[in-house]
Amino acid sequence: MADPARTLLLEVDDVPGVLSRVAAVFASQGANITSIQTLETIGLRAVMTIEVGPAADVGALVAELTAVPLVHRVTLEPSLLSIYGKRVIIIGGGAQVGQVAVGAISEADRHNIRGERISVDTIPLVGEQALAAAVSAVARLPRARILVLAGAIMGGEIAHAVREIRRQGLLVISLNMVGSAREAADLVVTDPLQAGVMAVMAIADTATFDIARQRGRTY
Amino acid sequence: MADPARTLLLEVDDVPGVLSRVAAVFASQGANITSIQTLETIGLRAVMTIEVGPAADVGALVAELTAVPLVHRVTLEPSLLSIYGKRVIIIGGGAQVGQVAVGAISEADRHNIRGERISVDTIPLVGEQALAAAVSAVARLPRARILVLAGAIMGGEIAHAVREIRRQGLLVISLNMVGSAREAADLVVTDPLQAGVMAVMAIADTATFDIARQRGRTY
Repeated sequence: MADPARTLLLEVDDVPGVLSRVAAVFASQGANITSIQTLETIGLRAVMTIEVGPAADVGALVAELTAVPLVHRVTLEPSLLSIYGKRVIIIGGGAQVGQVAVGAISEADRHNIRGERISVDTIPLVGEQALAAAVSAVARLPRARILVLAGAIMGGEIAHAVREIRRQGLLVISLNMVGSAREAADLVVTDPLQAGVMAVMAIADTATFDIARQRGRTY
Repeated sequence: MADPARTLLLEVDDVPGVLSRVAAVFASQGANITSIQTLETIGLRAVMTIEVGPAADVGALVAELTAVPLVHRVTLEPSLLSIYGKRVIIIGGGAQVGQVAVGAISEADRHNIRGERISVDTIPLVGEQALAAAVSAVARLPRARILVLAGAIMGGEIAHAVREIRRQGLLVISLNMVGSAREAADLVVTDPLQAGVMAVMAIADTATFDIARQRGRTY
């Protein structure tokens, strides 16, 4: 889990070039930016959060950033990883997504009570193109660790997207359903509650479940 | 919804200063970066996505970025807003979070079928400090529009955090529960399924529900 004091929240002028100016401060100090996120603009001010690597001198960064004319405020915040933790992503039809979510949320509650931080994030969608795009983009979601395919029929481009994100290091559990997406997953689970529970167990440090030992199986 | 072709995905060397070099390209073209996200590093390569404003010349940016020695690959991707849309965030106890999620996912499904894009994202947590930190940080979650407080007792610092994020433009629905957090919310709803449904209706362009007309009420 990231050090909660290594995220800087900056309020800056919303003008082209401001990021370049801010990034130059980090570069001049040799500080490695591990994550940066610009939030929605409020009035003429843009808000951005920047997480730095363990070697960076946060105090020196705050001092130098505060001296930049375009920068109005610098505060230290806990990282989103320390607050919301690792993410289980559930994509598919509303009926199944809801039930997988109930299982995952209930299991995440049990682990979060013991010091874990796991979120359960979902989107109900219809159609091969929309689902394949959503599956592919899981690789671009920060802190996402595992995907659950929660539908009644998925194949074609969705199966292709599943293979692609698995190559990028994500785990995938599929409900037992019609179509070829199931065959592309790490694990197939028939009961939606159980699928949600297993997804959380697979990424919780507080669990002893090893999905590598279950690869290719159907429950 | 953001133009799906205005997000650039860059594969770059994972070295200090790379962001500064990349940001300088955008600055030199006067392109306003609306959102930037660095993803987890794969080997010696870092992957980042950068969304630009409507005035930027994406073709010219791709050409100039490709010429930077630290940049190995530039591709165009649909924006996360166009794929996952606006976010409902549900925070609280596992039992309630699960049921609010079922209501919200079911309602989001109905709107997403009609062209909306709404995600339902959750975290079950215990304790005033953890909950207050999670509520405050909703203001830092990209695309978050509304929060549902789903618990049996919330007050103190949580109520303070609710007022703070409402000042930053977020909507808040609370379940009918013990404690002062309820009084800080826009709307109080007793049934968890209904609370989830109303949260989605409040942010869906495809719905006719106006939460401003319900402010301060209890259902």
